[in-house]
Amino acid sequence: MTAAPSEDDLLHALAAGDRRALARAITLVESRRPEDIRRAHALLDAVLPKTGRARRIGVSGPPGAGKSTLIEALGLHVTGLGLKLAVLAVDPSSTRSGGSILGDKTRMAELAQAPLAYIRPSPSRGALGGVAERTREAMLLCEAAGFDVVIVETVGVGQSEVAVADMVDLFALILAPGGGDELQGIKRGIVELAELVIVNKADGDLIGTAQHLAAEYVAALSLLRPLSPAWKPEVVLCSALAREGIAEVWATMERQRAALEGAGELARRRRGQARDWLWRQVSEGVVAALRADAGTRALAQALEAQVEAGTLSTAAAADRLIAAFRTKA
Amino acid sequence: MTAAPSEDDLLHALAAGDRRALARAITLVESRRPEDIRRAHALLDAVLPKTGRARRIGVSGPPGAGKSTLIEALGLHVTGLGLKLAVLAVDPSSTRSGGSILGDKTRMAELAQAPLAYIRPSPSRGALGGVAERTREAMLLCEAAGFDVVIVETVGVGQSEVAVADMVDLFALILAPGGGDELQGIKRGIVELAELVIVNKADGDLIGTAQHLAAEYVAALSLLRPLSPAWKPEVVLCSALAREGIAEVWATMERQRAALEGAGELARRRRGQARDWLWRQVSEGVVAALRADAGTRALAQALEAQVEAGTLSTAAAADRLIAAFRTKA
Repeated sequence: MTAAPSEDDLLHALAAGDRRALARAITLVESRRPEDIRRAHALLDAVLPKTGRARRIGVSGPPGAGKSTLIEALGLHVTGLGLKLAVLAVDPSSTRSGGSILGDKTRMAELAQAPLAYIRPSPSRGALGGVAERTREAMLLCEAAGFDVVIVETVGVGQSEVAVADMVDLFALILAPGGGDELQGIKRGIVELAELVIVNKADGDLIGTAQHLAAEYVAALSLLRPLSPAWKPEVVLCSALAREGIAEVWATMERQRAALEGAGELARRRRGQARDWLWRQVSEGVVAALRADAGTRALAQALEAQVEAGTLSTAAAADRLIAAFRTKA
Repeated sequence: MTAAPSEDDLLHALAAGDRRALARAITLVESRRPEDIRRAHALLDAVLPKTGRARRIGVSGPPGAGKSTLIEALGLHVTGLGLKLAVLAVDPSSTRSGGSILGDKTRMAELAQAPLAYIRPSPSRGALGGVAERTREAMLLCEAAGFDVVIVETVGVGQSEVAVADMVDLFALILAPGGGDELQGIKRGIVELAELVIVNKADGDLIGTAQHLAAEYVAALSLLRPLSPAWKPEVVLCSALAREGIAEVWATMERQRAALEGAGELARRRRGQARDWLWRQVSEGVVAALRADAGTRALAQALEAQVEAGTLSTAAAADRLIAAFRTKA
C-alpha cells in the first residue's frame, strides 16, 4: 500500500475535480478511526469556502416507483446540458445485513458511463440513528470538487427522508401508479416535505392511472401549507423508461430553485440546515466520546452488570454514567 | 386540576392493575420535563422487581398487510383465553406532522371494548433517532400492571422495526398477498429479524397467492441463519378478517417462547436487550444534558453563528462544544 496522501494533496486533487481524490475524501469522512476523523475535520474546514454552489436535490420514493431509472434519465439530461452531476445514495438498511434486497450494482449503468457524472453507492455503515450520517459531508466534498448538481437518493420511506430533506434545497418525491397510497406506504409527513412530486411510469397502459394519481396529489398538496411562501409544491408526470417529460422535471427543479433564491429563502434554508447539522454532530460526537472514555469504563461495566441482572433500571444507570463522564474530563 | 399523584400512590394503583394509573405512568415516562424525568426514573426503579413476566411480542409489516385487523383478532383470541393484553403502537412518523395518513382512532374498535385489553395509541413525539424512545419503559409499566402479553406494533418498515425487535422476545412480520416483495418494500434486514412470518388475507380469491407467498418465505427463511439455534423461523397462514388461523398464530408464538425459554435463550436475550437499552439511554441523556447545559450556552450561540455564516465547519464546531461541555461539569 502507498502512504495516505496529505490533506494538502487531497485538497488540491479534489479542487481539480479528480474523481479518485473525491472517492478517497468521502471514504475519509465516513471513517470512524480517530486519526481519520481528525484528518476529515481538517479537510472539511479547508474545503468549506469552496462549497455552496451546487444545486442540492433529495430524491425519494417507495420501492417500485422507478427511482433509479428516473435518476438515470434525469442525470443524462442534466449532464447533456453540460452540468457535472453527483449522485449519493443513502440506504437505511438494517444493522444486521447492511443492504436491501435490490442490489445496486447494476443500477444506472448508462449514467455511470457519462463523463460528467459521479455515482457513489450507499455506504455499508448505518447504525441506528446514523442514517445519512456523513451524507452532508459527502455532498460538500462533491461541491468542492466542482459538481453543479448533487442528487441525494434515499431508499425506503421513513426517517432517512426527513434527514435528507434537512440537507437539500429541494426534496422530490417519486411515485408510480399501481401501488395505491396504502401499498406505497407514503406517510403524510413525507409528502409534506416534498416540494416536487414526480409521477413516473406515465406511459403505455398506465397513462390514465398516472394522471389520476397526479390529480390526487395536486389535490392533496393544495391542502398542505407550503414549506415556503416562495414556492407551491408541483406535480409533474413523466416516463423515465421512455425518457419522456424529463426535461420538464428538470425545468421545474430549476424554477423552484430560482423562486427560493429570489426570495432569499435558499440562503435562509441552508443556514438553518447548517445549524441543525451542527447539533446532530454534537450529539454523535458526545456519545462517541462517552463510549470511548477510559475514565468511566469500569463504572460502565459495573452498571451494565446490574442492569442485566435486573437490580438497577437502565434510566438510573444512564444518569450515573453521564454524571461520571462529565466530571472525569 | 388536581395535584399529581405521588410516586407511591401511582405505584400502588399501577400494581393493582388500574388502567388510569397505567396511562398516567406511561405519560410520565414519555414526558421531557426535568421534574417528570426524575419522577419517572424513581417509578421505573420501583416497578423493576415487578417486571419481566409478560410475553413481549413485536408485530410489524407493510401498510396494507392488515396489521390492525390481525392484532385485533389475535387480541380477542388471547383475551378469550383469560390473558391480559396490552397493545403499544410505535409510529415513526415525521417530526413535522406526527401522524400517518391512516388515522388510528377507529382501529381495533372491538378489541378496545374487551375488559382484558389495553390499547395505547402512538405517542405524538418522535424526534429523529427517537423512534420507540420510551416504548420499552411503557412495556415494563404494562408488565408491572399485570399484563400477561404486550404487543408492540410498528407502523412502517425500517429503523423502528430494528428498535422494536431489540426489545421483544419475538418479532413477527405480517404480510399479505397482492403487493409483491418489491411493492411491500420489505428489506432483507427486517426479514432476518422475524422469527414468525404471518401471511394474512389467506381467504377468498387470495388463498392461492397467499399460499404462494408463504411458500416463498419458507424458502427465503431457510436460507437465513436463525437468530437462535433454539428456534427456526416459521410461516403461518391466516385470515384476520375471517378470524381463521388465529389460534394457530398464537400457538406458534407460545411454542417459540417455550423453545427459547427451554434453551435459556429468553433470559439471555433479555439481558442483552437491557444492556443495549442502557446505552441508548446514555446516548439520549448525554445529548439532553449538553443541550440543556447553561455553562456552554454562550459558546454554542457563537459557534452556531459561525457555522451559519459558513466560516466554521460543523465538525470543528461540534468538537469545541463537546470539549467545553466536559470541562464545565
